[in-house]
Amino acid sequence: MNKEEFTKTALEAKKVKGLTFADIGKAASRDQVWVASVIYGAASAKEPEAKKIASALGLGPESVEAMMEYPYKGSMPPEREIPTDPMLYRIYEVLQVYGEPLKAVTHEMFGDGILSAIDFTLKVDKEADPKGDRVVWIMNGKFLPYKEW
Amino acid sequence: MNKEEFTKTALEAKKVKGLTFADIGKAASRDQVWVASVIYGAASAKEPEAKKIASALGLGPESVEAMMEYPYKGSMPPEREIPTDPMLYRIYEVLQVYGEPLKAVTHEMFGDGILSAIDFTLKVDKEADPKGDRVVWIMNGKFLPYKEW
Amino acid sequence: MNKEEFTKTALEAKKVKGLTFADIGKAASRDQVWVASVIYGAASAKEPEAKKIASALGLGPESVEAMMEYPYKGSMPPEREIPTDPMLYRIYEVLQVYGEPLKAVTHEMFGDGILSAIDFTLKVDKEADPKGDRVVWIMNGKFLPYKEW
Amino acid sequence: MNKEEFTKTALEAKKVKGLTFADIGKAASRDQVWVASVIYGAASAKEPEAKKIASALGLGPESVEAMMEYPYKGSMPPEREIPTDPMLYRIYEVLQVYGEPLKAVTHEMFGDGILSAIDFTLKVDKEADPKGDRVVWIMNGKFLPYKEW
Amino acid sequence: MNKEEFTKTALEAKKVKGLTFADIGKAASRDQVWVASVIYGAASAKEPEAKKIASALGLGPESVEAMMEYPYKGSMPPEREIPTDPMLYRIYEVLQVYGEPLKAVTHEMFGDGILSAIDFTLKVDKEADPKGDRVVWIMNGKFLPYKEW
Amino acid sequence: MNKEEFTKTALEAKKVKGLTFADIGKAASRDQVWVASVIYGAASAKEPEAKKIASALGLGPESVEAMMEYPYKGSMPPEREIPTDPMLYRIYEVLQVYGEPLKAVTHEMFGDGILSAIDFTLKVDKEADPKGDRVVWIMNGKFLPYKEW
Amino acid sequence: MNKEEFTKTALEAKKVKGLTFADIGKAASRDQVWVASVIYGAASAKEPEAKKIASALGLGPESVEAMMEYPYKGSMPPEREIPTDPMLYRIYEVLQVYGEPLKAVTHEMFGDGILSAIDFTLKVDKEADPKGDRVVWIMNGKFLPYKEW
Amino acid sequence: MNKEEFTKTALEAKKVKGLTFADIGKAASRDQVWVASVIYGAASAKEPEAKKIASALGLGPESVEAMMEYPYKGSMPPEREIPTDPMLYRIYEVLQVYGEPLKAVTHEMFGDGILSAIDFTLKVDKEADPKGDRVVWIMNGKFLPYKEW
Amino acid sequence: MNKEEFTKTALEAKKVKGLTFADIGKAASRDQVWVASVIYGAASAKEPEAKKIASALGLGPESVEAMMEYPYKGSMPPEREIPTDPMLYRIYEVLQVYGEPLKAVTHEMFGDGILSAIDFTLKVDKEADPKGDRVVWIMNGKFLPYKEW
Amino acid sequence: MNKEEFTKTALEAKKVKGLTFADIGKAASRDQVWVASVIYGAASAKEPEAKKIASALGLGPESVEAMMEYPYKGSMPPEREIPTDPMLYRIYEVLQVYGEPLKAVTHEMFGDGILSAIDFTLKVDKEADPKGDRVVWIMNGKFLPYKEW
Repeated sequence: MNKEEFTKTALEAKKVKGLTFADIGKAASRDQVWVASVIYGAASAKEPEAKKIASALGLGPESVEAMMEYPYKGSMPPEREIPTDPMLYRIYEVLQVYGEPLKAVTHEMFGDGILSAIDFTLKVDKEADPKGDRVVWIMNGKFLPYKEW
Repeated sequence: MNKEEFTKTALEAKKVKGLTFADIGKAASRDQVWVASVIYGAASAKEPEAKKIASALGLGPESVEAMMEYPYKGSMPPEREIPTDPMLYRIYEVLQVYGEPLKAVTHEMFGDGILSAIDFTLKVDKEADPKGDRVVWIMNGKFLPYKEW
Repeated sequence: MNKEEFTKTALEAKKVKGLTFADIGKAASRDQVWVASVIYGAASAKEPEAKKIASALGLGPESVEAMMEYPYKGSMPPEREIPTDPMLYRIYEVLQVYGEPLKAVTHEMFGDGILSAIDFTLKVDKEADPKGDRVVWIMNGKFLPYKEW
Repeated sequence: MNKEEFTKTALEAKKVKGLTFADIGKAASRDQVWVASVIYGAASAKEPEAKKIASALGLGPESVEAMMEYPYKGSMPPEREIPTDPMLYRIYEVLQVYGEPLKAVTHEMFGDGILSAIDFTLKVDKEADPKGDRVVWIMNGKFLPYKEW
Repeated sequence: MNKEEFTKTALEAKKVKGLTFADIGKAASRDQVWVASVIYGAASAKEPEAKKIASALGLGPESVEAMMEYPYKGSMPPEREIPTDPMLYRIYEVLQVYGEPLKAVTHEMFGDGILSAIDFTLKVDKEADPKGDRVVWIMNGKFLPYKEW
Repeated sequence: MNKEEFTKTALEAKKVKGLTFADIGKAASRDQVWVASVIYGAASAKEPEAKKIASALGLGPESVEAMMEYPYKGSMPPEREIPTDPMLYRIYEVLQVYGEPLKAVTHEMFGDGILSAIDFTLKVDKEADPKGDRVVWIMNGKFLPYKEW
Repeated sequence: MNKEEFTKTALEAKKVKGLTFADIGKAASRDQVWVASVIYGAASAKEPEAKKIASALGLGPESVEAMMEYPYKGSMPPEREIPTDPMLYRIYEVLQVYGEPLKAVTHEMFGDGILSAIDFTLKVDKEADPKGDRVVWIMNGKFLPYKEW
Repeated sequence: MNKEEFTKTALEAKKVKGLTFADIGKAASRDQVWVASVIYGAASAKEPEAKKIASALGLGPESVEAMMEYPYKGSMPPEREIPTDPMLYRIYEVLQVYGEPLKAVTHEMFGDGILSAIDFTLKVDKEADPKGDRVVWIMNGKFLPYKEW
Repeated sequence: MNKEEFTKTALEAKKVKGLTFADIGKAASRDQVWVASVIYGAASAKEPEAKKIASALGLGPESVEAMMEYPYKGSMPPEREIPTDPMLYRIYEVLQVYGEPLKAVTHEMFGDGILSAIDFTLKVDKEADPKGDRVVWIMNGKFLPYKEW
Repeated sequence: MNKEEFTKTALEAKKVKGLTFADIGKAASRDQVWVASVIYGAASAKEPEAKKIASALGLGPESVEAMMEYPYKGSMPPEREIPTDPMLYRIYEVLQVYGEPLKAVTHEMFGDGILSAIDFTLKVDKEADPKGDRVVWIMNGKFLPYKEW
């Protein structure tokens, strides 16, 4: 079972069981976004979490193995450099519109370096608002300063 | 004075006065990222804030006017579709690697729609950590549900 | 049944039944363009409308479910950044030729912000003209002003 | 005086005189979007309109001549195939998301052919709405049926 | 039967019957290039011509229907923005090398507007020449002047 | 004087003298499109024609020399692979929509080979038509058969 | 049998028979590169050569027909504008590094025109060298001077 | 004096002195293409050859120094991935049309490896032919076999 | 058995046998990266090494033959010019960020020429470090000086 | 003094003083590649190193300041996604040809994660070899394992 087949199987099982990503996250003691990343094949899981996710979804050892493999990351469908889906495009828009000031402020607070996208977590929150609920995306990455050598 | 000239002037003044974006933000009662966006020409300011920013930087009415103009947004240098700067690239990487699961989780929590990048705020926090400080980028946008018609 | 299979099934049924998009729109109390968007998988429908569309086309619950799923939007065939089909290219041409003045006039009337493409409707009208009928495309979106923060 | 110099000159004069595109449109008995297109160099004007626009802005015969030249159209800044400015991007998004159903509905109403982008008008309206004003963009083009030969 | 299947079927039948595009054109009282465009799925035919073409090729009503559908135009194989086939590339080369002077001369003769590619015919002639026969491609399109509004 | 400077000088002189490309073509006993190609720097001229063109425009020996240099061809402004100007785009559209049938018909008439874009002429004609004049573009190139070796 | 199927069949037969392109070239009285071009579907063959190639490979009349069809040329796998294979990339590198001087020298020797890639031969030689054998690629094309008209 | 300034200076001097690349090649005991590569800044020269080229052109020590610097290679104008100039495009066309068979034949003669584009020479010959002279481009590169390790 | 089928077969066998690339490398007396390159179809093997690899994996003569074929190199999935996988992107990032200084230092040490990517080895080492192990990638290529001719 | 001006100044001073990057590296107690990165504006320096580099080159406090600024990284000239310079292209070629096996081997040795390009050093060595010296590029980055959350 390769990662693509696993994704189909797992999404089907999730639908049949009526589970949310949050439910599966709880079962695996992990955040819902990370769990969704494993299910979509964007992240690999270690054995204990893979087993818990498989168990929550009622899947067998082949699925556990598939979750543990290391993916070729970033092959979001369809394969365009700029995403066409409006929700995903908004991230690209933020990068285009606010990229330069964001870089300047982050450097001012931390020095020359980057926000790690590997030692990194990504969370989604809902903020209730009478004018309409708000989506909150929180990117949290270790600051990695440039090394001199 | 066009927006590009204003950016140069304002960054020069900021350096000479030894101000941080946070300092200017306080003077204008606004967040540092928004203030940096005005200074880099990614956002327009309304008159009261433009005046406060100009005053903090010791700049004249031409700068106020420049801040109030509506920019052609998203012309980040240099003009490549995928940013080459490693810090900015990490946002693109997050989009590529986690885009699909992020979309799935957000839809599950909110339904079909998007996170607005217009009714939107972007903040930078520092999270102290003994293993190395962490950068936190918080994107907060109104949820906009798709309209049926 | 995924969205692509649904599209094929629905277009086939529409042809067999000899229905227009306008007919199906009436049956669902919705505009023909929105109904076509649901059929082509560009929009998701809520349950009541999905049921009405399915009923008009004589389709079963699998089709209702398929219409209710949230699509990865914007994957118009074939996957070129600039559309090759002459009718669709004309929209791109309008954007290229009139984009800058359109932006200037809209800002002048509304301030800094955008026309929402989410809280949005799109209609097609026919305007009779002795020199040749005219196609009218009406894009109607909520004005979203940029937020300061 | 080339078209780029004219654009600068005309926008400067417009600002100094405190005129809107609608004001200039009235002076030239033309729509504000078309007038803005002439000012931004996206359209050429014939002599009578060019003179009226020049007169409204207090500009001389060199400006009249510049308005009458035929532009190389579509060189919107900056030169990216997909526009980065959020307002303009929304048109591209509409094309990506709704292109296929829009094409299907228009063909159903008119047959095989296109909406002309040459024998074409583009208008902007404001629709008052208690939940927030709405921007209306109206594209109106002669239907051109494909010729058999 | 979709358009791609029709193209295969029709080309096979043409080969078996030993017909040229000119033969089929005569049978349908149409030009050979237009007939080839219908066969390759670049143009739709109205019922009378579709029937004549089908009859010349010995094809049934499914083929007639396929010819009458409106194609997504411009999906020339393979899907590269610049064609790789040397004969087709030469058109692109003409556009690159002679585009600017061609535009200038045409404007000088007709004013600001375009050659319609919709109200348009395309013919191929052979011009005998002792130094080697010459191919003549004749593009004939209605002049569409830009509209003021 | 390089080719770009020559183009500016020659277009200025043409305007001042009130000449059309057809006038200059007559003076040089050459077609107006070819003469425009020399003036826009898309073609080089041999000495006799260069002198006649210079004489018609009242230009000196530096211009003659500039016309005789061999250009780097195909650098049409602005440097996009697909032209944005609507008139020039129509050639690209013809290539996209009719490329495949055009190739098939030409091969059927001539065998495997191409229409030369070097041993080539390009003419513009006006065809009077009560429904609106028609632009005729005639591409005439030597047929070059593929060589076996 | 289409050209792709023929290529597979022919390469398989060549392997089974243990023939080199040079062997097949001799059997067809043609150069090995041209024969390889026919086998890979980059060139069409006339009947006599197609028959000789088929006979050398032990293939039937379907293969002869496939070789005689006119290919859509230039669809080298995989479909990237810049080839990724290191041997083929070197040709692109030569074009990038030496293109300008090569153009200048060739113009100096021949005037304004091009090396034909149609009336063209391409050969491969081996030059023995104690420091390591050398590959020699010889491109030989008729000089085509630009035509004035 | 940087390489671009040197190129202008050297081409001007070459024109004034009426020298061909072949003349300068003789003076430097080098091939005309290599000498042209040095003059266009595509290759660096060692001191003795740089001095001979400078002397032939009547240039001073600054030019010698400029020729000895190592260029950033491959920045052919204008900066398009596929060259627009017809002569240079023909090399790209050869790569597209004949790339696969050329690779197959070269591998068959030499094994797995490449033709070096560094230990490489490029020559231009003229082959007289009653049907029209032929241009011969000879690429000669050391065969580099892939290393196992 | 083509190279793609071989890759699947070999990776499956490797997994079943529980072998690392290092194990297979030892069995073939070759480096693990080279062996992985053969297994992934990026390199061809000569017969002795192909047999040893096949033997280590328990594969038959078809696999040996597949390893000996010369691949079309560089068709890394998915076919994007800039790799999306974060580990592979880091190589591209190094090229973008440090390319210019790396070129300058290498030229200073070696003269004008390149590091061969053909007469080339690539190794991976692990460097233990209390702050976290380090990956070491060592690229070792013969220096190839540019030839004068 | 911005970073581009600093680069020019520093390279000029280095040439006049006859220093190598290795000399400047010694003066700053840093590796030559890092020092070259500071000089080319690809890296920022902290104050002590910036002062030592400035002192070695005989430059003033403006240069020190310029070195301390944080660059927009990755804007290698010219701005093409795939580098045209042959030496730099070889890195891209390694990525294309060996990317997949390199990823597989590194994952096998370290698990799921990446080689950091930030906590990273890059060195150049010369390895003497009777068959021709070899260039050794050593990329050394901290292994960053993917975080679960």
